[in-house]
Amino acid sequence: MKLKGLKDLQTLVSLCKRRGFIFQSSEIYGGINACYDYGPLGTELKLNVKKIWWDAMTLRPDIVGLDAAILMAPLVWKASGHIDGFTDPLVDCGNCRSRFRADQLKDPSKCPTCGVSGKMSEPRLFNLMFKTFMGAAEDTASVVYLRPETAQGIYVNFPNVQTTSRKKVPFGIAQIGKAFRNEITPANFTFRTREFEQMEMQFFVKPGTDMDWFEYWKKERIDFYAQYGFNKENLRFHQHKDGELAHYAKAAFDIQYNFPIGWQELEGIHNRSDFDLTQHQKFSGKNLEYFDEAAKEKYVPYVIETSSGCDRMLLAAMCDSYREEEVRSEDGGDKIETRVVLGFHPALAPVKAAVMPLSKKPELQEVCHQILKTAAAKKIKMDYDESGSIGKRYRRQDEIGTPLCVTVDFDSLTDQKVTVRHRDTMKQDRIGIDHLTKYTQDKLDNF
Amino acid sequence: MKLKGLKDLQTLVSLCKRRGFIFQSSEIYGGINACYDYGPLGTELKLNVKKIWWDAMTLRPDIVGLDAAILMAPLVWKASGHIDGFTDPLVDCGNCRSRFRADQLKDPSKCPTCGVSGKMSEPRLFNLMFKTFMGAAEDTASVVYLRPETAQGIYVNFPNVQTTSRKKVPFGIAQIGKAFRNEITPANFTFRTREFEQMEMQFFVKPGTDMDWFEYWKKERIDFYAQYGFNKENLRFHQHKDGELAHYAKAAFDIQYNFPIGWQELEGIHNRSDFDLTQHQKFSGKNLEYFDEAAKEKYVPYVIETSSGCDRMLLAAMCDSYREEEVRSEDGGDKIETRVVLGFHPALAPVKAAVMPLSKKPELQEVCHQILKTAAAKKIKMDYDESGSIGKRYRRQDEIGTPLCVTVDFDSLTDQKVTVRHRDTMKQDRIGIDHLTKYTQDKLDNF
Repeated sequence: MKLKGLKDLQTLVSLCKRRGFIFQSSEIYGGINACYDYGPLGTELKLNVKKIWWDAMTLRPDIVGLDAAILMAPLVWKASGHIDGFTDPLVDCGNCRSRFRADQLKDPSKCPTCGVSGKMSEPRLFNLMFKTFMGAAEDTASVVYLRPETAQGIYVNFPNVQTTSRKKVPFGIAQIGKAFRNEITPANFTFRTREFEQMEMQFFVKPGTDMDWFEYWKKERIDFYAQYGFNKENLRFHQHKDGELAHYAKAAFDIQYNFPIGWQELEGIHNRSDFDLTQHQKFSGKNLEYFDEAAKEKYVPYVIETSSGCDRMLLAAMCDSYREEEVRSEDGGDKIETRVVLGFHPALAPVKAAVMPLSKKPELQEVCHQILKTAAAKKIKMDYDESGSIGKRYRRQDEIGTPLCVTVDFDSLTDQKVTVRHRDTMKQDRIGIDHLTKYTQDKLDNF
Repeated sequence: MKLKGLKDLQTLVSLCKRRGFIFQSSEIYGGINACYDYGPLGTELKLNVKKIWWDAMTLRPDIVGLDAAILMAPLVWKASGHIDGFTDPLVDCGNCRSRFRADQLKDPSKCPTCGVSGKMSEPRLFNLMFKTFMGAAEDTASVVYLRPETAQGIYVNFPNVQTTSRKKVPFGIAQIGKAFRNEITPANFTFRTREFEQMEMQFFVKPGTDMDWFEYWKKERIDFYAQYGFNKENLRFHQHKDGELAHYAKAAFDIQYNFPIGWQELEGIHNRSDFDLTQHQKFSGKNLEYFDEAAKEKYVPYVIETSSGCDRMLLAAMCDSYREEEVRSEDGGDKIETRVVLGFHPALAPVKAAVMPLSKKPELQEVCHQILKTAAAKKIKMDYDESGSIGKRYRRQDEIGTPLCVTVDFDSLTDQKVTVRHRDTMKQDRIGIDHLTKYTQDKLDNF
């Protein structure tokens, strides 16, 4: 069996559009630059990405969740350094008026759009935060920002969360939420967009123990990807060297993924020291120290951050699970055809099983709908598909990563059994309808 | 047993702050008006609210999900009527400069803040959409809006979703997501805020069948609340009469909830006719008709909308489940004390079970942590609590709505059993540790 991985991003973009994973936002109006809408399958996949991350973080006793607002007090961004320093160097071509990030130009004097040399402006700093106006009249309203990261919402809530949850250091706060950056050059589909969803966890530790926890979280986070079926050869660590380190970071590693556009950041693990809490102490005038009862001492905790993008993890999961195989037609005969498979871990698969009547006869449809109803009661997402040959329907489900296909045939009416076909092996089992939900759940749990 | 419900909103606001359900946003900076952050328990509760709604909508074969971007093409809001008509009448007091919504003033000439009469300005229309600037320089960047509702994201994606999901009318598209409104007078805690999360479903039907579907969804939605334990006497329908109907609505009912601030909208069910799709046809120039294969005809579908707010449903769930009871102390003896209970349906409870060692002895703690680990593997959210008397810990868990408390005592070490205490009845069972996860799951499923 010949097997091929994903050769370019465009192949995936087409699949996403064709099957309803991801659409250009406001497409009927010609779209809006670098914004995307998740279609029915993409939405389920995104919910699953968030769920596996959230479960990995918050089903442990030393991490609690948070859901802070996107709009925060503006002084937060002064304290965090975003108002003064969250900028990219912007240049314009005097000939064709194209705009670029100066640090991304190969030849800083020549325009990559029109090719004219020597017309590029001096770089000027452009702040990437979106701003808006809150209050009842624009002239007097206060400027507020759409948060460019979710982390600050965690820091400013540290005392409230610590007190109410009665957690002792070391403990973490996890959050999933939207963030916005007015990128000069968004690119590569959902890899870099202006609106995106972050999944960040800030782990508060005693100073001096920070590098041990940093190593702990590096291991936890790379193991996470392996646990959900990512190919190890597509993952690697990239260490930020002195010149690359952000102003807040004492140490930083990226987990990089081997995207079709090259090795790129998938997740960052950062030792942010006590930088953020100290800044917020300074700007808010509030004491953000923690009292360590065991050691009988007060300190500002250090923070180990794991920061990942939901959209990016989703994109990586699609790239990683995409494969093309040459296989014999499942409608019988010797015909060889190419099947596209998204070999998702079942926890990620948007649809867990497709239920198919062999024909459109009402008595078969009725059995199918009974199966769907039983699964829904157990919160298992199944889908119904009745059109085309069974082989064609298998291909359709392979392409969206459905782990199981359940076929109801005429024998089902008498033996009360159905055929269950497995995505990866294409093997089939005959299973009693009564046991189908439990069988499905077991297959999903023990992948 | 004396039983009291919630007497005012302030009691709930205090509980939310004290126990980590909801905090004022950016509190260490003095807060930001009408924005709130969900703490650890609030975050879990909110996730549960979203999950029960999402499951009710999308675990049926005739509804699919969508997750559209917050930032959309500006023309969307021209077509929808928001740029021209999404306004409130704003007046200022010439004496103290307070601002009000003219339609909410009892005496339109007298200022409710300073009491001065005759200084109120003429009303002027204030658009409630937040605007921002997208693109690399403010002077030339395009104005874009933070969406004031999620519904339009569904309409503009109708052709893409219908084609890729191959659903036939009647079918629906469900979406959960943030929306923003620059309210002149936000109020009443999380009831009316400037940033909020909507849960909207648009059901596309053949014209002429719309009023039948409207009645169907009215019943489905009020039944939903009953299913999750809301008291029927706190829910009622309110019909929008001719003068109240929005410009897009052919018929509209609110489901109102009896909040401590009075009967207020909890959810809207609207027959929006073909208004929205027709407007988007006109402004986009794209054909949004549906071809009905069975009837061999083309039409613009009618839309039945169910629109609810996640924050508001959460607030209602808290109000509805709050009760105070006079009970005998569970530490033994005759002492009568007041317990506060959030009697959540288990699907909503932020924590499903609290695991408690009778004392801080390491061998008991070890059993507790084994129980937590087993539950986590089955994705059941349990929490650990070791401080204070068992009776005190029960009260603490009652107040956050935890359905079960699991106590590990010294007998547990020999008989491998634990005591499970039930929130509502305060009755206790002795259960084998091996069966605890299954026992818990059964209790949660069969409430």
